[in-house]
Amino acid sequence: MPLSEFELIDRYLSRLGARRDDVLLGVGDDAALVRPPAGLELALAADTIVEGIHFPASLSPEDIGHRVLAVNLSDMAAMGAEPAWALLTLTLPRAEPEWLRGFSGGLHELARRCGVQVVGGDTTAGPLTATVAIAGFVPPGQALRRTGARPGDEVWVSGTPGDAAAGLAALTGRLEAPAEVIEALVRRFTRPEPRVPLGLVLRGVATACIDVSDGLAGDLGKLCAASGVAARVDSTCLPRSAALRSAVDPEAARRFVLTGGDDYELLFTLPPGTDAAPLERGAGVALTRIGTMAAGYGLTLDGDALDRDALHGFDHFG
Amino acid sequence: MPLSEFELIDRYLSRLGARRDDVLLGVGDDAALVRPPAGLELALAADTIVEGIHFPASLSPEDIGHRVLAVNLSDMAAMGAEPAWALLTLTLPRAEPEWLRGFSGGLHELARRCGVQVVGGDTTAGPLTATVAIAGFVPPGQALRRTGARPGDEVWVSGTPGDAAAGLAALTGRLEAPAEVIEALVRRFTRPEPRVPLGLVLRGVATACIDVSDGLAGDLGKLCAASGVAARVDSTCLPRSAALRSAVDPEAARRFVLTGGDDYELLFTLPPGTDAAPLERGAGVALTRIGTMAAGYGLTLDGDALDRDALHGFDHFG
Repeated sequence: MPLSEFELIDRYLSRLGARRDDVLLGVGDDAALVRPPAGLELALAADTIVEGIHFPASLSPEDIGHRVLAVNLSDMAAMGAEPAWALLTLTLPRAEPEWLRGFSGGLHELARRCGVQVVGGDTTAGPLTATVAIAGFVPPGQALRRTGARPGDEVWVSGTPGDAAAGLAALTGRLEAPAEVIEALVRRFTRPEPRVPLGLVLRGVATACIDVSDGLAGDLGKLCAASGVAARVDSTCLPRSAALRSAVDPEAARRFVLTGGDDYELLFTLPPGTDAAPLERGAGVALTRIGTMAAGYGLTLDGDALDRDALHGFDHFG
Repeated sequence: MPLSEFELIDRYLSRLGARRDDVLLGVGDDAALVRPPAGLELALAADTIVEGIHFPASLSPEDIGHRVLAVNLSDMAAMGAEPAWALLTLTLPRAEPEWLRGFSGGLHELARRCGVQVVGGDTTAGPLTATVAIAGFVPPGQALRRTGARPGDEVWVSGTPGDAAAGLAALTGRLEAPAEVIEALVRRFTRPEPRVPLGLVLRGVATACIDVSDGLAGDLGKLCAASGVAARVDSTCLPRSAALRSAVDPEAARRFVLTGGDDYELLFTLPPGTDAAPLERGAGVALTRIGTMAAGYGLTLDGDALDRDALHGFDHFG
């Protein structure tokens, strides 16, 4: 017998994530009640993932649960916000206890680890779609916006972008490599790690920040446009993971790094000469300088304009 | 040429609703930034509507835009919260400017009227689904929960529930009546009016509150279960609109009132002898006493148990 919506929510979705003292009323009423901390700003974001659009139908329910929260935590990281409360809305073709157990387990584990409590939401019948809305805290004026980069600022990125796109290519049979290489890349797609600690240490240091969800070049272009500056990227500086280097040739690796999406690394600018070593220690992830901001407009890669046509060519992954 | 996600957001979704002073950064960055008011609690809720599940495919884009905000405003109303900020996530099969203009117009009009600013969200490709997450303010301890009803409390409802379900039946060709009657009922389905002013005047007065989204009897059952009390409903007291009375026979009208969903009226309990006249004036909607809370469990209608089987019978609208 199919579970009712009430039974579903009660069994799998009513106690997800951390137990926070500032949650006065969680799942079960018409709305949740929370107590915002005095004197802080709230960062608010919401992101949806749709089966067949943002992830292949073969993705495990655990990974889907992880993913819908991770993409939202990444928005908090990119603002330098400390994530706190989430609302989950889930549209499901069928109520399968096994699937729900996996989904809620994947979401719960990441939420608990990041101190986030799921305080409410909605469950409806329909095509598989999950949305999280999230709220986090930022001290007044310290949020990391896209608009503050200045000519002369250094351009930095965390981790090794491109891996997730290569992992997705492997997952969907478009890339072949030894099993351990495939496994490492696929995991970067299935379990993106939102850079929340990095966002926190960048407060008051970075001049601008964005998360890399649509590809490094494209997201850097957005940051440049928002700040009104140009970016000069040095391709020899682009970080490439060992797995990516062993899976594809150098040219393909460069394309994955520049245009692969779904990494949820942070791309940010630092005033010239900033010591990144303490930031790296605080963030727990490698940071790499990939270029410099300049006056003007657009992106250059090793001096060549990286325009829409050039980027378009990168869309066709081998 | 189809519009890009960026152009879509910029043109139709970036300036929806009121312009609020407490919004420091709206649509366009990784997250919005808002300043919560000192000393208040926040009520947080999210609701999704899916084409074919929550509304027929024939519903106009204006009505869909109105609806996705209205169902969330109704959650704020049911908590006695003053709505403030919303996040909109929209999944769309195609980006049609005409559709988006209608959708955003319907949503904007209601948001502006209720003082809500849409501060962010997400737009993705996929089956038509809209989700709003909403935040509102409540003075500490004054939120209207489902849990506070006591034996002896009076049971009240706003407006004329049942009309929306009759309107949906008319809209989908399952109910026939004179054109002006149909029009009145259909409008109750297509343009539900969230009872935000009523929620505010019920603060500190009502002992419990819920919004009627799944049908009066079912939602009253939820309120009873949450409060640990029983409800005795007097069928002669049930409000019935003139349109409903002229569209269907008395027995069908009673079924629509008790089990029709989508009205988004408020169902609430008042201490015995409360003067409802000032509440009615403040709320701008008629309020009707329909019964009394008692010790025990479950619902009775004119003394007969209104159990799951009895309610099940009501599901089959004529």
